[in-house]
Amino acid sequence: MAEILTVDLGDRSYPIHIGPDLLDGIGAHCTELGLGRCGLLITDDNVGPLYAQRVCDSLRAAGFQIAVAQIPAGEPSKNLDHMARMYSAAIQNGVDRRGFVVALGGGVVGDLAGFVAASLFRGVQFVQIPTSLLAMVDSAVGGKTGVNLPEGKNLVGAFHQPGLVLADTSVLQTLPRRELIAGMAEIIKYGVIYDAELFARLEADGLKALDLDPDFIAYLVKRSCEIKAEVVRQDEREGGLRAILNYGHTLGHAVEKVTGYTRYLHGEALGIGMGFAAVLSRLEADLPLADVDRQFELMARIGLPVRDDTLDLEALCDAMRVDKKSVDSVPKFVLASQIGQVNFGLDVRPESLVQAWQLQNVS
Amino acid sequence: MAEILTVDLGDRSYPIHIGPDLLDGIGAHCTELGLGRCGLLITDDNVGPLYAQRVCDSLRAAGFQIAVAQIPAGEPSKNLDHMARMYSAAIQNGVDRRGFVVALGGGVVGDLAGFVAASLFRGVQFVQIPTSLLAMVDSAVGGKTGVNLPEGKNLVGAFHQPGLVLADTSVLQTLPRRELIAGMAEIIKYGVIYDAELFARLEADGLKALDLDPDFIAYLVKRSCEIKAEVVRQDEREGGLRAILNYGHTLGHAVEKVTGYTRYLHGEALGIGMGFAAVLSRLEADLPLADVDRQFELMARIGLPVRDDTLDLEALCDAMRVDKKSVDSVPKFVLASQIGQVNFGLDVRPESLVQAWQLQNVS
Repeated sequence: MAEILTVDLGDRSYPIHIGPDLLDGIGAHCTELGLGRCGLLITDDNVGPLYAQRVCDSLRAAGFQIAVAQIPAGEPSKNLDHMARMYSAAIQNGVDRRGFVVALGGGVVGDLAGFVAASLFRGVQFVQIPTSLLAMVDSAVGGKTGVNLPEGKNLVGAFHQPGLVLADTSVLQTLPRRELIAGMAEIIKYGVIYDAELFARLEADGLKALDLDPDFIAYLVKRSCEIKAEVVRQDEREGGLRAILNYGHTLGHAVEKVTGYTRYLHGEALGIGMGFAAVLSRLEADLPLADVDRQFELMARIGLPVRDDTLDLEALCDAMRVDKKSVDSVPKFVLASQIGQVNFGLDVRPESLVQAWQLQNVS
Repeated sequence: MAEILTVDLGDRSYPIHIGPDLLDGIGAHCTELGLGRCGLLITDDNVGPLYAQRVCDSLRAAGFQIAVAQIPAGEPSKNLDHMARMYSAAIQNGVDRRGFVVALGGGVVGDLAGFVAASLFRGVQFVQIPTSLLAMVDSAVGGKTGVNLPEGKNLVGAFHQPGLVLADTSVLQTLPRRELIAGMAEIIKYGVIYDAELFARLEADGLKALDLDPDFIAYLVKRSCEIKAEVVRQDEREGGLRAILNYGHTLGHAVEKVTGYTRYLHGEALGIGMGFAAVLSRLEADLPLADVDRQFELMARIGLPVRDDTLDLEALCDAMRVDKKSVDSVPKFVLASQIGQVNFGLDVRPESLVQAWQLQNVS
């Protein structure tokens, strides 16, 4: 049985359906939403062959005219060239202002498809069907869409809320284990920034998630979506609080950039970023040493990387300066004062960046 | 002395300054707006050499770090490739989330720069300095931004209101006469859709505008902005009323498309589009024949094209079907029942399209 959460954003509120075997119900949900006749399904060459047919069958049975556009799997596809291809594919399938875009895939597909939906005809309806754990607990919820530039990740995009998120946890069975582990990074992040109990349950039972224990997965997806929905409700456009979701991401994005978006999955880079944020929180925000250790231990147990001493701190700092959250080229940090409690928008002493990097990479 | 209108959109309200010799005041206005330090000025290779230096001097004197990016003048520049160039230029000049984009130019520059501002870092501040009559009375006001696709005009974009519009009427002295005439098309449109008195004053004094009579130009720009601001205030996102601004544009956009965006300026294509809309209004909305004639006569006196019998109606109809306003590939029309009064979202009989085209091109 599906659980339904609501992201409460006034007239842009929308439901998140969470549960097993939900894919075949997408057509009926889209009919309820009152979507126009023509839509474009955007997926990638990993997920498309597995699930696109089922989604299309359901949509067509409900009377929709749906075309499928596929991008190569992976972060490098999240670029302006693929945007241009998607626009043309949508228009060629008759998508008009009342039409819609469906994202079937992980964060890359969701972010790209979301920006297509946000900008085509200055905005059409958008449906998220996240198929990775990371997309279910993070990127499919909250309305951030965008693509990368040569200068950095997610530098271009829009806020565009979906009309519906359908998180079918059954599809995690075909998710590569490496991706499952990467998705756990964002869940650990929710524990650190907002929910000490979630963090403790991950410490107790985290490995059950990797075995796809249905109840535990359902709990993790639901609790993560609840936290994200609550943060987004309070601060949709990231004027303030929403920045806490960026814990570990300042360095994490830089790690992805200097390694060309190919060595690490986003969640893996986030592991390294959270390792750095934990040490930096010790130096700059009085995070108890025990709480630093708990983060490193949990991430290591799950199988996430927590350091990479082959990287050059200076190159990472250059990358952080052009991060979206930087102000006048000074990177801003989210730092923890204890597990479950963070502050955001913080400047840190430049020497702390060096010291944190050294401590992280010798510990 | 400048007149100041306000576009009343709650927390997205903004002023329009209208008057002679305003350019040198831009730095002070941007300081008042509280813009971040780094900005990108986007202009084209016609306007840039004339006015970019003055604008930059004013901004730099106010402490801003401003870089200039230039696009080739003309509609073909309003594309995704130039978007990508602008993003990079902005980032290379240190523009961050608190930075800003300034559009100095006509509608092409304003639309492109506006979409850059809407999407860079998911939205930065935006200042419009329209330098064509058309941009002053139409495209710089109202928050529509976007670029063209091979499939059609303005198919991709965003709603993104500027923080300030500065309409310095002195710059019209360097505007080519052809562009001045083209700008008159949108002013005539405001008369048809909203203000019979404006239309009558154009009939009485229209040629004064082409002589740049300062008082008459000030009246036309101000009255046009008032009407647009009022329509946009009532319907910012074009759920309904805002569609009336599209009078003459359904065919006008198609004319631009089938002629490759090179034969006609937007305002000239709009002249042909309004000629068509006038005849179609006679056939489908009981517009009195005298009011059809008044539109043709006024446009002809101003020097606007009102027909082009070298074009193929079938090709135009194909183009109209993929227009943004089409619903399930059926074009929607704005039709006049009298000068100053229109209805929007109308379907018309296919045979009326043929008949209107024939009547327009023999009359």
